[in-house]
Amino acid sequence: MADFSVTPWEASGVIDYDKLIAQFGTKKISPLLKERISRAAGELHPMLARDYFFSHRDMDLIVDSHEKKEGFFLYTGRGPSGQMHIGHLVPLAFTKWLQDKFKCNLYIQITDDEKFLVKQGMQWEDTQKYSHENILDIIAVGFDPKRTFIFKDSEYVRNIYPLMLAIAKKTTLSTAKAVFGFTDSTNIGLSFYPSYQIVPTFFEKKRCLIPSAIDQDPYWRIQRDIAQSLGYFKTAAMHSKFLPPLSGMEGKMSSSVAQGAIWLTDDAKEVKSKINKYAFSGGKSSIEEHRKLGGNPEIDVSYQWMKIFFEPDNKKLQALHDEYKSGKLLSGEMKAALTERINSFLQAHREKREEARETIKEFTHEGALATQMWEKHF
Amino acid sequence: MADFSVTPWEASGVIDYDKLIAQFGTKKISPLLKERISRAAGELHPMLARDYFFSHRDMDLIVDSHEKKEGFFLYTGRGPSGQMHIGHLVPLAFTKWLQDKFKCNLYIQITDDEKFLVKQGMQWEDTQKYSHENILDIIAVGFDPKRTFIFKDSEYVRNIYPLMLAIAKKTTLSTAKAVFGFTDSTNIGLSFYPSYQIVPTFFEKKRCLIPSAIDQDPYWRIQRDIAQSLGYFKTAAMHSKFLPPLSGMEGKMSSSVAQGAIWLTDDAKEVKSKINKYAFSGGKSSIEEHRKLGGNPEIDVSYQWMKIFFEPDNKKLQALHDEYKSGKLLSGEMKAALTERINSFLQAHREKREEARETIKEFTHEGALATQMWEKHF
Repeated sequence: MADFSVTPWEASGVIDYDKLIAQFGTKKISPLLKERISRAAGELHPMLARDYFFSHRDMDLIVDSHEKKEGFFLYTGRGPSGQMHIGHLVPLAFTKWLQDKFKCNLYIQITDDEKFLVKQGMQWEDTQKYSHENILDIIAVGFDPKRTFIFKDSEYVRNIYPLMLAIAKKTTLSTAKAVFGFTDSTNIGLSFYPSYQIVPTFFEKKRCLIPSAIDQDPYWRIQRDIAQSLGYFKTAAMHSKFLPPLSGMEGKMSSSVAQGAIWLTDDAKEVKSKINKYAFSGGKSSIEEHRKLGGNPEIDVSYQWMKIFFEPDNKKLQALHDEYKSGKLLSGEMKAALTERINSFLQAHREKREEARETIKEFTHEGALATQMWEKHF
Repeated sequence: MADFSVTPWEASGVIDYDKLIAQFGTKKISPLLKERISRAAGELHPMLARDYFFSHRDMDLIVDSHEKKEGFFLYTGRGPSGQMHIGHLVPLAFTKWLQDKFKCNLYIQITDDEKFLVKQGMQWEDTQKYSHENILDIIAVGFDPKRTFIFKDSEYVRNIYPLMLAIAKKTTLSTAKAVFGFTDSTNIGLSFYPSYQIVPTFFEKKRCLIPSAIDQDPYWRIQRDIAQSLGYFKTAAMHSKFLPPLSGMEGKMSSSVAQGAIWLTDDAKEVKSKINKYAFSGGKSSIEEHRKLGGNPEIDVSYQWMKIFFEPDNKKLQALHDEYKSGKLLSGEMKAALTERINSFLQAHREKREEARETIKEFTHEGALATQMWEKHF
């Protein structure tokens, strides 16, 4: 079997997700839990039905809270270190579904401080520019402006500083080193930063649910260790697998490998060329052979992207799968279908992103939740 | 010779201040420098004339800046961990003299965050209460409300967070460990804190002067290492000796030894009783012997307090010295003289402290400098 490695900073190799569950000590999202979520939400999101979101912590307690009408809230974030790619949008799309179905508040932390601290060449002005750009992309996903608060760490720090200190006081350098891989060469800002990341899980005296890729799970270990001693709930989480890079079913789509990613700014021609050039194919080396033996959808990146994000319709997905496997659908046709889906998605995204320039203030300062949050001091 | 030890956290033994200068790598305040300060200020403060302020870094450059009309500013702070004692007021009185003579801005940092992080049992509410109480005591020293900005770290953090991050990014955990004695058991808030302490030295693009006791010198080493790379001046400093505790000429007056300190809240009876009971005397064991052999003013705490703070008149101080040494002045009389001075000082202080309730807003939010500072974002 191929080796693999997953840390909050890197994913490589062909990932065995069952092993990850054991390694991280999380729980598999069971058929029973899916059924409970489906009943509560009125439907099951394809990412849950298809096990793209596959692991969790305390999601059963979140459903309990919902059933008891105690409510819960959502929390996610974005490090503004550059432009965003499709891999960034996938968990956000799932988060939007959760907000739509459960009508809950959502807090989106823009970690300008952490990105400035962690990236050597990064200037403060860059983090501010990317923050603005990224917020537009996030709003374009379609969150509810009345129930969503998007905040930059550097702006909101005054409201949360005492709470951040209370968290920091409970966390030693050795714990931070163990969880985040810090060393004595780490700068003193970065070693403090984990306390800010925990703050939003305490924004309400309800359970917090964090939807994210599984590699982010370690970040919440400290939260779950100290939450109760500060009078809050341990945060819950739902973990997704990774969106595979174009290059194949190893690792994850990452900003550091340009050919592996589709950027939200890529135009139709670029998308087509990238998919054709780089998208790893599960097809055979000649059309004849493919027609005869069929392709392998399990390793075909184009099919996998369809399954994860671009083909929500189960019947159509099944058809793609079966026709590809039988050899009826060629790799080039699969790529063309994906290209069309990505391009119409990106076109719609960019339109919504332009509209976001008008609504940004609602999310950051003037919407119902944002107004409430700026009046709060923790 | 007795051993001694001085760190930012503790002072013990009979301190050899010349050795401290060598150990810390600072400079002695020379007669020439005193003359330059005297010419610039129009007079020499007794604490300088009597070598209570005895060491410095770059004070010659501060006088240069003054002579070239480039100006400079002052910075000091207070950790609000409890009530204040007389030892806390001594450097503030000197700082007030500097502000009066040089008409310069003064920034006073109230480190509520650091005290919360460093003291295990300390609740956030305590730090807020003591901050308010301590600010009243500080204002009572008589600073110029138009040129003074007193700020709580937790309140002003939003204005300075990006600058704090820039400082933090330049400081590794190993540097912080070396300078501040942190270990892996230190909490992640405290290890970040030094970056906040450096921020006010960058409040103006002028030289900064920090008057403090010599034990605080290590705190500014990181500042002097990184200031120029961020486009600012290395901070200058003037260092005082310690106000000896009542118990004798060892260590320094400290909040942790109650009998060693006179609190600003002590009433006349308490002061009298403390001085009589605890003030270490340089006199002889009987009146007869004292009359015959005389006392030793060098180890007499009451005389030393007169010299450091309570008798600014050189002639009167000389008379106290000579009469005590000759045996004409008894220890009880020296104590009575000091008691009278302390009590009239404290009475005046408490009156000014009551008045400070009316003016506190000028220092923290509404005065000319405070208004300017709240509009600034670093």
